[in-house]
Amino acid sequence: MEVLKTIAEVRQWNKEKKAAGQEIGFVPTMGYLHEGHLSLVEAASRENGAVIMSIFVNPLQFGPQEDYANYPRDFARDCLLAESAGVDAIFAPEVAEMYPKYPQLTTVEVQKVTSRLCGASRPGHFTGVTTVVSKLFNIVQPNRAYFGQKDYQQVQVIKQMAEDLNMPWEIKTVPIKREGDGLALSSRNVYLNPAERKQALALSQALLMCKELYAQGERKSIVLIEAMQQRIRQEAKARIDYVEISDCRTLEPVTELSAPVVVALAVRIGKTRLIDNTILEGGETCTEL
Amino acid sequence: MEVLKTIAEVRQWNKEKKAAGQEIGFVPTMGYLHEGHLSLVEAASRENGAVIMSIFVNPLQFGPQEDYANYPRDFARDCLLAESAGVDAIFAPEVAEMYPKYPQLTTVEVQKVTSRLCGASRPGHFTGVTTVVSKLFNIVQPNRAYFGQKDYQQVQVIKQMAEDLNMPWEIKTVPIKREGDGLALSSRNVYLNPAERKQALALSQALLMCKELYAQGERKSIVLIEAMQQRIRQEAKARIDYVEISDCRTLEPVTELSAPVVVALAVRIGKTRLIDNTILEGGETCTEL
Repeated sequence: MEVLKTIAEVRQWNKEKKAAGQEIGFVPTMGYLHEGHLSLVEAASRENGAVIMSIFVNPLQFGPQEDYANYPRDFARDCLLAESAGVDAIFAPEVAEMYPKYPQLTTVEVQKVTSRLCGASRPGHFTGVTTVVSKLFNIVQPNRAYFGQKDYQQVQVIKQMAEDLNMPWEIKTVPIKREGDGLALSSRNVYLNPAERKQALALSQALLMCKELYAQGERKSIVLIEAMQQRIRQEAKARIDYVEISDCRTLEPVTELSAPVVVALAVRIGKTRLIDNTILEGGETCTEL
Repeated sequence: MEVLKTIAEVRQWNKEKKAAGQEIGFVPTMGYLHEGHLSLVEAASRENGAVIMSIFVNPLQFGPQEDYANYPRDFARDCLLAESAGVDAIFAPEVAEMYPKYPQLTTVEVQKVTSRLCGASRPGHFTGVTTVVSKLFNIVQPNRAYFGQKDYQQVQVIKQMAEDLNMPWEIKTVPIKREGDGLALSSRNVYLNPAERKQALALSQALLMCKELYAQGERKSIVLIEAMQQRIRQEAKARIDYVEISDCRTLEPVTELSAPVVVALAVRIGKTRLIDNTILEGGETCTEL
């Protein structure tokens, strides 16, 4: 596995792969890899001749009060995991390589899809995401790029951007990976102490409860949302950021469930902000733009 | 010469050219071609195996009070001129092909370089430009793209965007083409009646006067600007939008001329808004980012 630190090295790597007739699968990450990331690599390996992963904790997508400085990092461990998962090259630039001037003058912005859910509680976050993803796409020039459904809104925002700007790469979504007890994998789970780790189950269990009520015929958002809120509030350290039921593509709130919807939530467990989601009806097709 | 109406056709054309080992030169225009556009084609032909021109009057870059509806169009004539200049393919999409939903949710925005000059008098204009150029770049995927120095600020904004977003294409600037009497070529010159056409010379003559004063040793912006303003105000139908002397890259105003600068002006002659500019010292290198 190659470790590339500069944009010039990635362009050279890309040129060689394309000259060899290989298609390129791209897995952008912020590192501190877990099985969720590795399932993206697995999908990328299946569909492309070469797989490149970026590891870059992007300052532009963190708010001033957020955890940029403390975001977990372990590059040596990431390299071992990536290599054994079949990654051919890691692109791990310094901040100065990505942003010779920080913050840069150019941003890519998506309206509407970014306004609710995480967009409402993290102002500027998605502009940071779409801007850095645009940069990474232009550097890597992949055939396909892979994102985890755990960050459901992020995927929809990136798909909207790619469609609106006529980007030539395909955006693929890979299902959420969970611990045995249901907790969605996240690099931020490492922040949880044992008591918090238990209470963090509130997220996936609330979603499960919502699914059951839905299976029993409940179609009113307000009823489903209140049931989930109640479940989450049973945990002493849980503070709800949002619990919403939204249209799968526009992410606009839905009051009566008919079309496929996404149930998405963000909850603070102690100081750790966790997110999770699930789709009701429509399955994977719903995640397509 | 091929005429392509859809994005899919352009992608196919691009694929064939690249498979044949040809590099692609791209000349984005709003049509109603003149010698200025054709000089871009000439430069593109010299440096690339294949040349594609887009003709698209982009609604997103016109303000509500501007001339989008009346912007001059003559597609048949454009095709003849483009073909004889050596264009291999024209991409002439309908608005609905470029914007299936208008306005779209995603924009590309550049700060600072867009804030003065035309950016100040045409709010939203440059966001319209950078957004459509991003789209066209992603559709055409050229090796090099060609822009006229007449729209000096536009070129700087596009170079800033390309640098910040790590776009893989080269941005090239081609010098201003002028009529025999000095008027910079522009599709909008067609709006001028004979009396206005004469008064429009105020722009290039003001720039010429500035160059002469500079050659005589004048280095104070305020003196140069006042001389130009005075020259322009000699014309009854001329209304100054701006006359500025700015840093070549940042476009920030300069008070004492030392580094290479751009002298840029926008003047309304009757109802027609015209722009022109010239570089003092440094020549072409100054237009490079």
